[in-house]
Amino acid sequence: MKFVLAPDSFKESMTAWEACEAMERGLRTVFPDAQFVKVPMADGGEGTVQSLVDATGGRVVQCEVTGPLGNKVTAFYGILGDGRTAVIEMAAASGLALVPKHERNPLHTTTRGTGELILHALDQGVSSILMGLGGSATNDGGMGMAQALGYQFLREDGSELGYGGGALSELSRIDASRVDPRLQELQVVAACDVDNPLTGKRGASAIFGPQKGATPNMVELLDASLGHLADVIERDLNMQVRDTAGAGAAGGLGAGVMAFLQATLKSGVDIVIEATGLADKLQGADVVLTGEGQMDSQTVYGKTPIGVAKTAKLSGVPVIALAGSLGTGVEAVHEHGIDMIFSIVPGVCTIEEALQNASLNMERTARNVGALISFGKS
Amino acid sequence: MKFVLAPDSFKESMTAWEACEAMERGLRTVFPDAQFVKVPMADGGEGTVQSLVDATGGRVVQCEVTGPLGNKVTAFYGILGDGRTAVIEMAAASGLALVPKHERNPLHTTTRGTGELILHALDQGVSSILMGLGGSATNDGGMGMAQALGYQFLREDGSELGYGGGALSELSRIDASRVDPRLQELQVVAACDVDNPLTGKRGASAIFGPQKGATPNMVELLDASLGHLADVIERDLNMQVRDTAGAGAAGGLGAGVMAFLQATLKSGVDIVIEATGLADKLQGADVVLTGEGQMDSQTVYGKTPIGVAKTAKLSGVPVIALAGSLGTGVEAVHEHGIDMIFSIVPGVCTIEEALQNASLNMERTARNVGALISFGKS
Repeated sequence: MKFVLAPDSFKESMTAWEACEAMERGLRTVFPDAQFVKVPMADGGEGTVQSLVDATGGRVVQCEVTGPLGNKVTAFYGILGDGRTAVIEMAAASGLALVPKHERNPLHTTTRGTGELILHALDQGVSSILMGLGGSATNDGGMGMAQALGYQFLREDGSELGYGGGALSELSRIDASRVDPRLQELQVVAACDVDNPLTGKRGASAIFGPQKGATPNMVELLDASLGHLADVIERDLNMQVRDTAGAGAAGGLGAGVMAFLQATLKSGVDIVIEATGLADKLQGADVVLTGEGQMDSQTVYGKTPIGVAKTAKLSGVPVIALAGSLGTGVEAVHEHGIDMIFSIVPGVCTIEEALQNASLNMERTARNVGALISFGKS
Repeated sequence: MKFVLAPDSFKESMTAWEACEAMERGLRTVFPDAQFVKVPMADGGEGTVQSLVDATGGRVVQCEVTGPLGNKVTAFYGILGDGRTAVIEMAAASGLALVPKHERNPLHTTTRGTGELILHALDQGVSSILMGLGGSATNDGGMGMAQALGYQFLREDGSELGYGGGALSELSRIDASRVDPRLQELQVVAACDVDNPLTGKRGASAIFGPQKGATPNMVELLDASLGHLADVIERDLNMQVRDTAGAGAAGGLGAGVMAFLQATLKSGVDIVIEATGLADKLQGADVVLTGEGQMDSQTVYGKTPIGVAKTAKLSGVPVIALAGSLGTGVEAVHEHGIDMIFSIVPGVCTIEEALQNASLNMERTARNVGALISFGKS
């Protein structure tokens, strides 16, 4: 038997690698001689760096960068086992979790730290970057990131803008003459699972601004500022980003990575599947186990287990999902390639108990799934 | 495929029959043409009447009897599909749940109602009775039951004793001359899963008295009274019951059914397995599904799923258990014939949610278990 183990992380309880290990422990009690291929997954959001580092035998790099509020924070990114690819979660440097609730103000928050992570990774010699766009505290259209990389955002009088989406209203022109030359050769793929445009009713400011602390008045100002940024980008950088699907991700950083890094946007799970070589690893597999903390009717929209299932189906490999919680309408996943699904929770319990015992619960469920497979085969 | 579905009831959420039906619904989506043999189980405790009635196509009979406190209560028993066998839960007439907490007093509570259920069943023409001994409010050694059936418990002066274990201290002799003659032909098997003797440190009064409201002084009095009863039984009925394992069940009703009904004591689940013909139904089965609300390390001690598993193993049929909650040490069941075990709970939830959605959760889990079996077979 060849098992491929490809779960996402289980938030607040297991990294994807730990979930792989628990699955393997459980299955090994039934199939001691089977082959277990561990491919920790992610969807471009929280845990993507850890999973890709674990999947490729890479390393996590910590460094001090500018946080969303301009103060210094300790952030991290990953360098994959190939030594040539960095993986960055923008939220590690510019995320909402770094800003206390009462200080949230997207007029001021900056993506500068994300740019500094890119610089740090370039110093390590990477030629390719995978970037997750989720969880931002910012609404600056990627200006801060671009500033860190040498782009100059100038007022009419030639002075440089400060941080934050609010400053963009004063933007007169963008000067790219002092941009870090290493960007020329850098390949950037950004993980983006929303299709929001930069501006308008479905734009970054209107949809995601309020959760970052924007009042209705601020939303209006931020939306106009991002629109103005799009105009200047079109004029000075010769690129149209305003209406591109995904431009509105991460407070307009979606537009920013396209304009300033010539990045392409892709589904997060597709990026991870490609980076881990999942399709190759599925060759000859008898079954793949996937899963994540919560699976429900929303899981069919681009979440990790569905991405794994789609890839598995290309090779005709059956898919078993083991989830922390199965929510309403989870049956929908059966029409998207997940053949069987089980909750690992052993019964009525609190969220604290479920998180604390997640590894043991996963091991036990995997053991019983294995026994059932073994029975079917007998 | 032939599936045998043999779960216990899931307390407060599903009868065993309802659990069977939910299992069948789930499995049928994967195996539409399979044979499903539904054998609702029980362990001699609550739900035994309903399960045996459902398993045999019998009926539930309601009737008014004397409750534990002497007042009238509406109780029930079952007549199995053969029309010749009654099944009685003593708790339906003489159970702790019928006595408000502040009125619990085992000096006074009587098993008379249980005797009245037997009389009612005899009037329906039954020749055999299966009786569950669990959940009693009484400590009268079965005197009340015997009184209802014509036994006379007499004082020195020839007057009859009233109700309750406290009255037994005045017992001078037992007169069996007016006993209902139909008892001669009646076969009684009582379900008993404790091995406590009638008296002493491990006796009925010491071990089970306190939960029925007995104070330490009352325990002493009750224990002496049951010892006295045993002496009189030995002298007048020529039967030794004091030290027999199980005599102390149900406040000494274990001794009572032996002395007054010539009953044999057996494990509850074994009685149910025999009454339902489970062993025959397992012939040619590919798999049996069992389960109950809570399974843990205690499950190995005579609970329903273990009984089902033991019976299945005689025919080499694999056993899958689906439980509401898997408790600490549940892995022990694998050494007692349960090959695989899953919780039906879909994730973190309250007990109320688990109870309310039990049927749907069971159906979904059975569907996925079926899919896994089907995959193994493919």
